[in-house]
Amino acid sequence: MTGTTDKTLLESIGSYRGLSLLGEDELKVLCSDIRELIMKVTLKNGGHLGSSLGAVEICVALLRIFNPERDKIVFDVGHQTYAYKILTDRLTKIHTLRTKGGISGFPRRSESRFDAFDVGHSSTSISAALGFAKARDLRGQGHEVVAVIGDGALLNGLALEALNNVSACDTKLTIILNDNKMSISPRIGGMAEHLAKLSVSVPYRRLKQFVKEQCRAMSDGSGVEHWFDRVKTKLKSLLLPTNVFEELDISYWGPFDGHNVSEMEEIFELSKQYPKPLLIHVITKKGKGCAEAEARPSNFHGVGSGTVLGPKAAGVVKTKPNDWSQAVADNISMLASRDPRIVACTAAMAEGARLAGFKELFPARFFDVGIAEGHMLTYAAGLAAGGIRPIVCVYSTFLQRAMDQLVHDICMQKHPVLLAVDRAGLSGEDGETHQGLLDISWGRSIPGLMIAAPRDKTDLDFMMSGWLEKNGPMMIRYPKGKAPESIGRSQAAPAPWGKAEILSSGGEICFVGIGATVPVIIDAADECEARGLPRPTVIDLRFISPLDWRTIDETLSTHSLVIVAEDGYISGGTGEAIAARASMIGANGRVYPLGVEQKFIPHATRAQQLEECGLTPEGVIRVVEEFYGEKSAASG
Amino acid sequence: MTGTTDKTLLESIGSYRGLSLLGEDELKVLCSDIRELIMKVTLKNGGHLGSSLGAVEICVALLRIFNPERDKIVFDVGHQTYAYKILTDRLTKIHTLRTKGGISGFPRRSESRFDAFDVGHSSTSISAALGFAKARDLRGQGHEVVAVIGDGALLNGLALEALNNVSACDTKLTIILNDNKMSISPRIGGMAEHLAKLSVSVPYRRLKQFVKEQCRAMSDGSGVEHWFDRVKTKLKSLLLPTNVFEELDISYWGPFDGHNVSEMEEIFELSKQYPKPLLIHVITKKGKGCAEAEARPSNFHGVGSGTVLGPKAAGVVKTKPNDWSQAVADNISMLASRDPRIVACTAAMAEGARLAGFKELFPARFFDVGIAEGHMLTYAAGLAAGGIRPIVCVYSTFLQRAMDQLVHDICMQKHPVLLAVDRAGLSGEDGETHQGLLDISWGRSIPGLMIAAPRDKTDLDFMMSGWLEKNGPMMIRYPKGKAPESIGRSQAAPAPWGKAEILSSGGEICFVGIGATVPVIIDAADECEARGLPRPTVIDLRFISPLDWRTIDETLSTHSLVIVAEDGYISGGTGEAIAARASMIGANGRVYPLGVEQKFIPHATRAQQLEECGLTPEGVIRVVEEFYGEKSAASG
Repeated sequence: MTGTTDKTLLESIGSYRGLSLLGEDELKVLCSDIRELIMKVTLKNGGHLGSSLGAVEICVALLRIFNPERDKIVFDVGHQTYAYKILTDRLTKIHTLRTKGGISGFPRRSESRFDAFDVGHSSTSISAALGFAKARDLRGQGHEVVAVIGDGALLNGLALEALNNVSACDTKLTIILNDNKMSISPRIGGMAEHLAKLSVSVPYRRLKQFVKEQCRAMSDGSGVEHWFDRVKTKLKSLLLPTNVFEELDISYWGPFDGHNVSEMEEIFELSKQYPKPLLIHVITKKGKGCAEAEARPSNFHGVGSGTVLGPKAAGVVKTKPNDWSQAVADNISMLASRDPRIVACTAAMAEGARLAGFKELFPARFFDVGIAEGHMLTYAAGLAAGGIRPIVCVYSTFLQRAMDQLVHDICMQKHPVLLAVDRAGLSGEDGETHQGLLDISWGRSIPGLMIAAPRDKTDLDFMMSGWLEKNGPMMIRYPKGKAPESIGRSQAAPAPWGKAEILSSGGEICFVGIGATVPVIIDAADECEARGLPRPTVIDLRFISPLDWRTIDETLSTHSLVIVAEDGYISGGTGEAIAARASMIGANGRVYPLGVEQKFIPHATRAQQLEECGLTPEGVIRVVEEFYGEKSAASG
Repeated sequence: MTGTTDKTLLESIGSYRGLSLLGEDELKVLCSDIRELIMKVTLKNGGHLGSSLGAVEICVALLRIFNPERDKIVFDVGHQTYAYKILTDRLTKIHTLRTKGGISGFPRRSESRFDAFDVGHSSTSISAALGFAKARDLRGQGHEVVAVIGDGALLNGLALEALNNVSACDTKLTIILNDNKMSISPRIGGMAEHLAKLSVSVPYRRLKQFVKEQCRAMSDGSGVEHWFDRVKTKLKSLLLPTNVFEELDISYWGPFDGHNVSEMEEIFELSKQYPKPLLIHVITKKGKGCAEAEARPSNFHGVGSGTVLGPKAAGVVKTKPNDWSQAVADNISMLASRDPRIVACTAAMAEGARLAGFKELFPARFFDVGIAEGHMLTYAAGLAAGGIRPIVCVYSTFLQRAMDQLVHDICMQKHPVLLAVDRAGLSGEDGETHQGLLDISWGRSIPGLMIAAPRDKTDLDFMMSGWLEKNGPMMIRYPKGKAPESIGRSQAAPAPWGKAEILSSGGEICFVGIGATVPVIIDAADECEARGLPRPTVIDLRFISPLDWRTIDETLSTHSLVIVAEDGYISGGTGEAIAARASMIGANGRVYPLGVEQKFIPHATRAQQLEECGLTPEGVIRVVEEFYGEKSAASG
């Protein structure tokens, strides 16, 4: 655009369309340019650094061999798509990554026609790609369908179900296994590339065809053909130990170097000619090209905005963060030191859940089951049935993966499992797929599930210790971000179990908050006074299920307007439940549920999202002013 | 008890405690007695005949070798537990199977201390058993933990996640794979039993120990030990082809004859001495001992109450049932014949969803993915993204297994997938685990998901055709049972899309129904007249999401009491949404949500369950009478 000669090679080629012009050395420069850009943007805006750096060459090779206008490239999770985004017409927008109005940190169909399938949670790619492949067959089209999945994601139940279904679908599909953790051991040696080529080589296929034809011409042909297959299998098995994929009727090629573009290109090109489901195993290094990220990949899986590399880089920080996750983790350690029955479970989120300290203190009582939320909940139910008291740390958005297990395996059987539901509510830069907006509506309708939300650490301690006494299934939800030590406490002791707490008494309006919205309504109440509006009553609901009907009924009958502010969808939420109660008991008070409308909330900071949804003191005041406006209009 | 000599052997021994007294021949008689009893009860009460007949010898062998007072036997799904129930002190109660107040068709901890874990949905057993095993280790106990799982259930994502986690859990667990469909091929030949014994034989273990000790004494011991392991592995691999379980570090023994008690006993006894996770593969015949069920196992998987064996036995009936499932299946075929984009998906429920006809007409457009609801929904999303229009037939209860996929893969991306949600609401004899009471609350909070419920076939046709035009994600829910042709129609054409339908106009009370509750409120309205109560307005809501607020607001402002009857949990349901609306708009009308209270509803007939929940004309009238009672008390 500027016409200067300072352009990087990446800026010169602009998009994937220019890739075919580059030679091997230039590709190396290009990959390095892409890495530099990813690091620059990710360290500034926050994002998934390690996976994206690891997948640069894969994205380049994919875009040189496949045609993203025609072929469907289905990424899993989407951590690893930054290079793909840059090369598919988003070079000039990549600096807006994960910012409000900018491009998403995950594939989004609404963002680009090159993003085949929206994603954010793990392990959907093979199922979706199978759907794309079958749709292609049914519609008589001829494009390629490629799923790109990581080794961690492959071991989730959804991906395993899909792998198991590949053979029955009887369609052509290429799965690229981006193995950056070596959690799947490369069982197959140096023969692999040779054999991969052999499987699609013209002479070998001609030979096979010839033998088949000969067999058909013979009287007892099927027998010979069968014999030939057996010999072939036998020979192959002498060269290649069988592996899981071959058992599932998916051809396995690999492993290849996932940082060698030309090696991958050769294989990807061959895969186009291969008529059957195929898995290509490539080995990559997480954080490739960034010394800090290569050295401590799990610390650089995701980085916060404004991360600075060097000795103080993310992950080397020794001070504990003062967020909700850390407060919960500290409580788990404290409870575990008192009660030997306490154990902690996570589904591959030990870092996010700040469980490193617990793991160090109680290694035998720490369980990371991998990306397997469903299994984790049923496992926890089994532990509880066996006399243990499991605390399951799970992000609200990932709990959506295990709802049936929550209902049947935990709540129906009243097993004492505590779900520590992290990142509940609006969750910021990860966007639509990572919002924790459904746990209230979904959880509230499950019989026997206690649900609580603390406003500060005092109540968090009280609720977690209380769960152990109550001995039943319980969910404690808390948001992303800092956990306040103490909010609105005139006395040290928390309110009784199951009871809402009246923080201050006022006139005809009542503000009801839960967890993260309590500070919001307190500020709103102060602002009312500042603006000369009547002082409202302020209530912290504390318990979402069962609700404290006694306090609620009294509130409904003594106030004209009750605003219930919650960090979740309005539909099916607590505000609706209280509003319904008002109608059912014939209360005079009107209820205004203030929460998230029925739409998917895209990426932005949590503060911006809260503002967008009116979950701010200003948002509460607007409702109040509207009420007094209506009132004066009615009386005027 | 009676002292007569007519007692069967089963009646004589009474429970598992007498099993040890029996010889091989007597065990055969006993198994035959158990089979006869299962057939008698199941054909009368309905239930899972085939699986239970197939697992008789497994249950007998388990109860002879393990101690159900101490050891934990965790059944998967629970189809196969009838023999276990009979032998664990429920012989005299088995005739009450699946009847109100009688014993459940599935394991229930509340029913018997011998039922280790409640179940009803597939594939939980390995996760739960792993939890039990780990709890045992942590508590320093020494009992055995055994999971019993079928071959179909093993291929669900939850079970696969658990299998993948077994090795990391580092605990002793025995998994019995009851393979009755041969869907997992018995790869291992006659060497199996010998090798199984070898693995636990004292000489072999002593040899291994000796070699290890020698190695430790040597300077470079680890190298030799490693070499020994390699040779052992190599030798084993020459004898045994590798299999999936061994790859996952779970020892594999099998296959054994699942109808040979003494063979299984020998193996189970050996398993107790084996210190590592172990899978024992037994082959059984579904429906064993019942000629009709052996011949047509899928027709006898479950039988209705009052089934008669013989030429007219269940499954040979050629006339189509007139239930909702059949009506939906017929519509799918009709739509598919007009639109080549229509395909049908099921997760191992082709029989229940009456899809045989569709499969016959459109074999290439029919997909049974196995017990894999999560994969099914993401696969359907991929199909839709590829230009196909998938109709997914899924029971409401099983949809709970795929909620995240529904949110992210279908609704967030607005993919035109139709979920035909069968057995919605109270579902009868299968009890707690099979109720479809959550789909309204959960579905209603998902942005962009249209939800409708037809009262008759006329509206069903209209809604299914309409979905194709609307081109978005949609859920149509319908109950178990007969589909009425036409209800309350003065004109042939259905009401407009998205609109509620006022079936009759009345006075100060309004009855609102949805789907299955519409006939209930119509009858209740008639009954009002019969009892001299004022005629109520009767409305069929038709669409649950989005709601027809115009009609609802008008109704709320023109009636004193609005009773909303729905076949689902009250909490988070439609009634609550309408009640909340009343409060929000400041309507004078009170709303009474009539639905299922927050509890798990056990087995009984659907009619009994509806009665228990007040979802009958009488239940509606009670609310009306209470209202007029209060009113007259207030005015009196």
